Amino acid sequence: MTDKSDKTLWAGRYEAQAAESLRKLNDSLPFDKRLYASDVKCSGDYARALADAGVITHEEAHEIGGGLQRIVQEFIAGIFPFAAGDEDIHTAVERRLTEIVGPVAGKLHTGRSRNDQVATDVRHWQAGEITKINALLVRLARTLVSQADQHVDTLMPGYTHLRAAQPISAAHWLLSFFWMVTRDVERFTICRDHTLVSPLGSGALAGNPYPIDRVDLAKAMGFYAATPNSLDGVSDRDFIVELMSAAALLMVHLSRFAEDVILYSSPQFGFITLDERYTTGSSLMPQKQNPDVLELARGKAGRIAGHLSGFLNTLKGLPSTYNKDLQEDKEPLFDIIDTLETLLPALIGLVETMSFVPERMLAALDEGMLATDLADYVVAKGVPFREAHGIIGRLVRHGLETQTPLSQVPLEDYRAIFPDFDEDVYAVFDFAGSIARRKSFGGTAPEAVRVQIDQANEWLTNR
Amino acid sequence: MTDKSDKTLWAGRYEAQAAESLRKLNDSLPFDKRLYASDVKCSGDYARALADAGVITHEEAHEIGGGLQRIVQEFIAGIFPFAAGDEDIHTAVERRLTEIVGPVAGKLHTGRSRNDQVATDVRHWQAGEITKINALLVRLARTLVSQADQHVDTLMPGYTHLRAAQPISAAHWLLSFFWMVTRDVERFTICRDHTLVSPLGSGALAGNPYPIDRVDLAKAMGFYAATPNSLDGVSDRDFIVELMSAAALLMVHLSRFAEDVILYSSPQFGFITLDERYTTGSSLMPQKQNPDVLELARGKAGRIAGHLSGFLNTLKGLPSTYNKDLQEDKEPLFDIIDTLETLLPALIGLVETMSFVPERMLAALDEGMLATDLADYVVAKGVPFREAHGIIGRLVRHGLETQTPLSQVPLEDYRAIFPDFDEDVYAVFDFAGSIARRKSFGGTAPEAVRVQIDQANEWLTNR
Amino acid sequence: MTDKSDKTLWAGRYEAQAAESLRKLNDSLPFDKRLYASDVKCSGDYARALADAGVITHEEAHEIGGGLQRIVQEFIAGIFPFAAGDEDIHTAVERRLTEIVGPVAGKLHTGRSRNDQVATDVRHWQAGEITKINALLVRLARTLVSQADQHVDTLMPGYTHLRAAQPISAAHWLLSFFWMVTRDVERFTICRDHTLVSPLGSGALAGNPYPIDRVDLAKAMGFYAATPNSLDGVSDRDFIVELMSAAALLMVHLSRFAEDVILYSSPQFGFITLDERYTTGSSLMPQKQNPDVLELARGKAGRIAGHLSGFLNTLKGLPSTYNKDLQEDKEPLFDIIDTLETLLPALIGLVETMSFVPERMLAALDEGMLATDLADYVVAKGVPFREAHGIIGRLVRHGLETQTPLSQVPLEDYRAIFPDFDEDVYAVFDFAGSIARRKSFGGTAPEAVRVQIDQANEWLTNR
Amino acid sequence: MTDKSDKTLWAGRYEAQAAESLRKLNDSLPFDKRLYASDVKCSGDYARALADAGVITHEEAHEIGGGLQRIVQEFIAGIFPFAAGDEDIHTAVERRLTEIVGPVAGKLHTGRSRNDQVATDVRHWQAGEITKINALLVRLARTLVSQADQHVDTLMPGYTHLRAAQPISAAHWLLSFFWMVTRDVERFTICRDHTLVSPLGSGALAGNPYPIDRVDLAKAMGFYAATPNSLDGVSDRDFIVELMSAAALLMVHLSRFAEDVILYSSPQFGFITLDERYTTGSSLMPQKQNPDVLELARGKAGRIAGHLSGFLNTLKGLPSTYNKDLQEDKEPLFDIIDTLETLLPALIGLVETMSFVPERMLAALDEGMLATDLADYVVAKGVPFREAHGIIGRLVRHGLETQTPLSQVPLEDYRAIFPDFDEDVYAVFDFAGSIARRKSFGGTAPEAVRVQIDQANEWLTNR
Repeated sequence: MTDKSDKTLWAGRYEAQAAESLRKLNDSLPFDKRLYASDVKCSGDYARALADAGVITHEEAHEIGGGLQRIVQEFIAGIFPFAAGDEDIHTAVERRLTEIVGPVAGKLHTGRSRNDQVATDVRHWQAGEITKINALLVRLARTLVSQADQHVDTLMPGYTHLRAAQPISAAHWLLSFFWMVTRDVERFTICRDHTLVSPLGSGALAGNPYPIDRVDLAKAMGFYAATPNSLDGVSDRDFIVELMSAAALLMVHLSRFAEDVILYSSPQFGFITLDERYTTGSSLMPQKQNPDVLELARGKAGRIAGHLSGFLNTLKGLPSTYNKDLQEDKEPLFDIIDTLETLLPALIGLVETMSFVPERMLAALDEGMLATDLADYVVAKGVPFREAHGIIGRLVRHGLETQTPLSQVPLEDYRAIFPDFDEDVYAVFDFAGSIARRKSFGGTAPEAVRVQIDQANEWLTNR
Repeated sequence: MTDKSDKTLWAGRYEAQAAESLRKLNDSLPFDKRLYASDVKCSGDYARALADAGVITHEEAHEIGGGLQRIVQEFIAGIFPFAAGDEDIHTAVERRLTEIVGPVAGKLHTGRSRNDQVATDVRHWQAGEITKINALLVRLARTLVSQADQHVDTLMPGYTHLRAAQPISAAHWLLSFFWMVTRDVERFTICRDHTLVSPLGSGALAGNPYPIDRVDLAKAMGFYAATPNSLDGVSDRDFIVELMSAAALLMVHLSRFAEDVILYSSPQFGFITLDERYTTGSSLMPQKQNPDVLELARGKAGRIAGHLSGFLNTLKGLPSTYNKDLQEDKEPLFDIIDTLETLLPALIGLVETMSFVPERMLAALDEGMLATDLADYVVAKGVPFREAHGIIGRLVRHGLETQTPLSQVPLEDYRAIFPDFDEDVYAVFDFAGSIARRKSFGGTAPEAVRVQIDQANEWLTNR
Repeated sequence: MTDKSDKTLWAGRYEAQAAESLRKLNDSLPFDKRLYASDVKCSGDYARALADAGVITHEEAHEIGGGLQRIVQEFIAGIFPFAAGDEDIHTAVERRLTEIVGPVAGKLHTGRSRNDQVATDVRHWQAGEITKINALLVRLARTLVSQADQHVDTLMPGYTHLRAAQPISAAHWLLSFFWMVTRDVERFTICRDHTLVSPLGSGALAGNPYPIDRVDLAKAMGFYAATPNSLDGVSDRDFIVELMSAAALLMVHLSRFAEDVILYSSPQFGFITLDERYTTGSSLMPQKQNPDVLELARGKAGRIAGHLSGFLNTLKGLPSTYNKDLQEDKEPLFDIIDTLETLLPALIGLVETMSFVPERMLAALDEGMLATDLADYVVAKGVPFREAHGIIGRLVRHGLETQTPLSQVPLEDYRAIFPDFDEDVYAVFDFAGSIARRKSFGGTAPEAVRVQIDQANEWLTNR
Repeated sequence: MTDKSDKTLWAGRYEAQAAESLRKLNDSLPFDKRLYASDVKCSGDYARALADAGVITHEEAHEIGGGLQRIVQEFIAGIFPFAAGDEDIHTAVERRLTEIVGPVAGKLHTGRSRNDQVATDVRHWQAGEITKINALLVRLARTLVSQADQHVDTLMPGYTHLRAAQPISAAHWLLSFFWMVTRDVERFTICRDHTLVSPLGSGALAGNPYPIDRVDLAKAMGFYAATPNSLDGVSDRDFIVELMSAAALLMVHLSRFAEDVILYSSPQFGFITLDERYTTGSSLMPQKQNPDVLELARGKAGRIAGHLSGFLNTLKGLPSTYNKDLQEDKEPLFDIIDTLETLLPALIGLVETMSFVPERMLAALDEGMLATDLADYVVAKGVPFREAHGIIGRLVRHGLETQTPLSQVPLEDYRAIFPDFDEDVYAVFDFAGSIARRKSFGGTAPEAVRVQIDQANEWLTNR
């Protein structure tokens, strides 16, 4: 045996050294070291499970547990001594454990494979990160509601096709994103539940030959259940795909919010002013204030969707159980978590500090946006909506041809198009009135928006 | 007004005809006509909601309902008369309704926009399709369990990295896919719940100015709830992304199953024989039997993942509420449903009719696969697993160098490497024995697999 | 033999009928029938190659050629008689050929497999479609130049980060898209060259055992060369991936153009008026004019990128040579071609008919956009640019704080910040002057834009 | 002015500090520092262009050049002093330059924006990396040819649908991948040409107001041309998408090669033995030799395709010119380059050291693979191929039913199916003979393969 056997977990039958290029390609330590706390936690629990099953003694488990504690402290203190042969975090921890507690460390791997170990560690780590992301999302949601609460009566144009459609309130617009975020939190929560199913005890693929109680072990680690099939257990990465899917959809929402705010804070709209602290300047143009946070929120939607797309590709057509291809799960997963944990605080800060410019929003309303209300006026006269729509269409065209705002068109012209128009038609030209009429559930009327805010606060209270 | 106003729902204010190229690009009838039943169902319920709110009379609602019934019958009979100007199914239905019941049809659109109408119809339709897909998945799951039930004691090699790893049973291998399918059903079910939230009554974007009861309306249509914000309601396509994500992950599972069975039914493996009815021949090579069903299951994983990736791209960065880009939701959604509904029956048939070749599976087992069991033997002598792994590694190398199977290596050679080896080491060379030891929860031992089958049957019973 | 042998090309060794579900899954006729002309063309040339090689007689080749001609005419006339067993277009053509010319039709498949036949047909068809798409792109490019030619002196704000940055001309903006299109044409042209390499004569995988001259055959079909390796020849789909990549990048460009024009034609910008014929109305809001063509151009970018992503997934990890998974190449390819051929005419029409609103564009210019010019003024006094940038930054802030436009800030205030300011600083406040200074190659100055237009016209002339 | 102005290039007009969360999100230095050499090179050339245009003196340009040289040396020596405010590599270099040469450093940014600077640097860097990757690909190609050269007469089964189809030579199989690699090199070369077009001198977006000669400058930097439109110049990322597309397609090829070799080196096939140095072991199973390099080659195909998909998403629908979203170009680009530069050396080593096991390959040939040759025998008797295919199909079935290999079926049975069979039919059962017949261009016959190798060597000679 060469000294190489000291360096990897698997060198026993090997004669030759691994090629340098293979090592460089294969080693995952640079990115998987962040799993150290999960690795140590789950290893400690595994040692106890081995002891409970009589495979090792409780003293040995205790010794191992002590060594693992010291390792965690070394990591936290930033003094964990990595060694040249550490190909991944799991190797590094086991190697170090041996240095600390001696050969008994070698008992920790009894019945355990890196296949079930890694899958367990990643699930444990991911569940913790989901909790963090959900906390950030709740903060974002709270900020949206808090802004909305102040703008129930602030009028602005509602757009479809980026064309002025109907007046709405700023609160209603803000809350539309609140509800998206609640769905995101729901999806992450479901994903967390699906994540917390433990594959530990699946061995390399065929199961564990020692009488450990996998369900107890799962619970000790904070999982809800144990995976029911060892082959599936070691290669199931559904929980990662679910997280990626949830993240990709969250980013769709953030990108849409970002697009709106980029537009609304542009000089042509001028509805929103961004706080200087959340914008950047230009190296060439001294007057610029650029909405980088929002542009990155929008642009990074692609990055996350790309990771999802890429990982689905990696998984496609893999043969049963563990294949090394699965190592490609970690970098995109970690990058998604890092992206969200970096982006969300900046976005929350931006939303907290942005302010509306009600006069610009009001100025952007135009009478054309009340055309539907005019049609409803005609409907109230007993005309089917479809016909009313045609009548108002002709009115709009008449206004355009005579270059007259609809509120200035004389009554006789109204009547020429539809005889039942009366003086009270001019009362339709009231943006706040239009809004107030849309008071059915989910509508933009202040009273309906207040209901929304109550619902929102209730949701927030439960979090 | 030109006669064009008769053809589209929106022509009132328009002077010019739409360009032919625009119409060709814009019209969605060729693909959205499959929504007819949902459109008619939800329109009928909307008419009743208008009547309940006093917006139209109950007689009018009844008249509209009668006309809609006739339209459904025309569709079912294949005699629905499409007209040149029908740009989508919603236009076609409304136009036809007018022909049948006269101007009262024009009242159906009171307070309703195509924005909330389309979103509602698609949700209604999708929920129905999820039910169908889940039924197919349950059939597939049942077929897997039924095959597994017959092969609890059929031995085969378990692979990792496509290298023989440890012996497993065919039942265990089959069940690993069963559990994947149960997760898929779970995801589709969650998606269905999220789908059945009704945006009807959101209007174009700002809400409905008539006092309809949106929650009652939602329930009448078979939905669980109504969307709480009209802006979000008309442009939320999360339910479609969720379906696409669930489908993409399902296809990952099917592609992995397909890969395994393609390999196992290849001449080099020979573990599985496919029924001739589920293979195809070659136009040039008379001897071929090609596993097309499996290859398409694998290949179509890309197609579905591509639709998900594409739709996330389409959604990215869209401004608030409805934009025409959202029309790009339907074709990929429909294609996913069609793909699953075409693929799954063929795959179910293939699984039902495939048969195992136990002697080939047995012949593929080799002693190397018992190396872990040998290590466990050493562990039982009190040696830490990590050290035992090294000992067996040296044994394996010794066997390779002397070209001796491990079961033929003389005891003195065993002892030269590790003195505590005894005669009973030769008892390790028993594949069935190796399997039987892996009886902890989720393991490949017959008794553990029987537990799995019981669990599986319980799951099936509840479906 | 059952009568099934009459229906598929490969039934000889088969006893059982294919399962109905397999047939439904497997049959590609519904989508691949569009290849008929390429199939007939390449088959005719193959027959001649067989004759030249002495494998069949020239009379036989002539007979086959005559039958194929008749088939083409049947397709053109829409009277080609499909039969129940036609699983794809190649089967249909061969079956029909047998009906027309009798058993000699059976000689056409000598040495040929569907593997090389299909790959050849798709390449032939694709090359033709690229030619059509390039013609459309050249039309689009010409339209852009034609519009630009009229707006060399039309001023508008240039944006970065969607923030007003510096004044530019409308022509310059239009031409920026012209150059993107030229790169797209270049990529499609390269793709066409790579497409026109013939795999015909590769057989199923191992090559053709008859002495046909593959290079001559390639040239007869209009290809540039023959593939050098038969295994690669039958399964190489690089040419499709290249087309998809080129199309995805084209769509990025079109989506960016669409985004700009959606914004510029929105009420808040008002820079561009779209012709009514290229907009649509709303079913609820009579006043709306929606830019559906542009929204679909933007939204369909996702669709095309999704096809690329999906097909790369399908190809990933396929074993050597032909696998049925490759049948998944056609539907996305066809959909991309259809999408482009439907979208581009509408987009060309929209660009041709859109008009600028110079007064709105001028009104959107503000003095802040001249800050860089002010910095250049300071640089001209010998101050390093980086320092000048800081000086102007302070000026901008001074203007904001005193709410004074920079052109109204008194000279003493200028001098308080930087003493070398002179009266001539006020001459900087001239948008046309700012533009005129950017006359280096590629700049927005009218004289530089004229150079661009000359280059553009030269490019167009060569097409 | 606060001291913040010392830290970013754009702080002049800003009063408040950027939020910490924004800085963390925004800073690109951690990943873009690898651009240092390109940044310094292009900055030096820009200084000279400014001097040539008379904007700065040649002495100043010289001073700047000297400072830049020192910066490069600091980077190479690993002693470049980063500072807290360095938000990206360009800021860091300019800040350090100021420290070294004083205020004259501030003149370097005259007329230049980070927009054109970054775009230029990335192009310069990318072109260099393409050269490296092409060199690696040529090495891989050479290795494949070198292996092929030794196996022109080594027989193996050729597969379609992973079913034994026809005998081929190992050389032919190896060369099929050689040709894929040549196409990859071609695509990267085209991409490099498209990359080397210089946007420098485009300013922030509107062009450069100083009379620099952009074409001369481009050539000084090693570019072929200058971009013709400044708006397009600063935001064109086509060259990155092209690289990503080329890389994604390369990875498809490598993944297919990997899949083949994983299969062929598996125990069930046993055609290929991998050198121990390019495999890894198992932490649990001492006997394992896992093909990690190949699995990662296959798995990373997803990663690269994901980056392409993600970046297309990011680009979709961006407004004109530079938006911060474009900063999302670098991390996926860098990761693709790193992945290829890490993967290819390992893969080349694996191919160089792998060895064939001719006896296993020969043993895998079976008579069924000569069915097409039998059909050709019948064709030679004047029977149309389609009919011959049917005859042999019946023979194959007869063989299966009587469990007789075709070479053992008595002549009378042959004649019962087709009377013109003669004694010489048994000569068809010769695998080498089958191969030798496929000698048309691109076929598997040794003489055709020799032609391929000559072509391949010619291609290699030119590289």
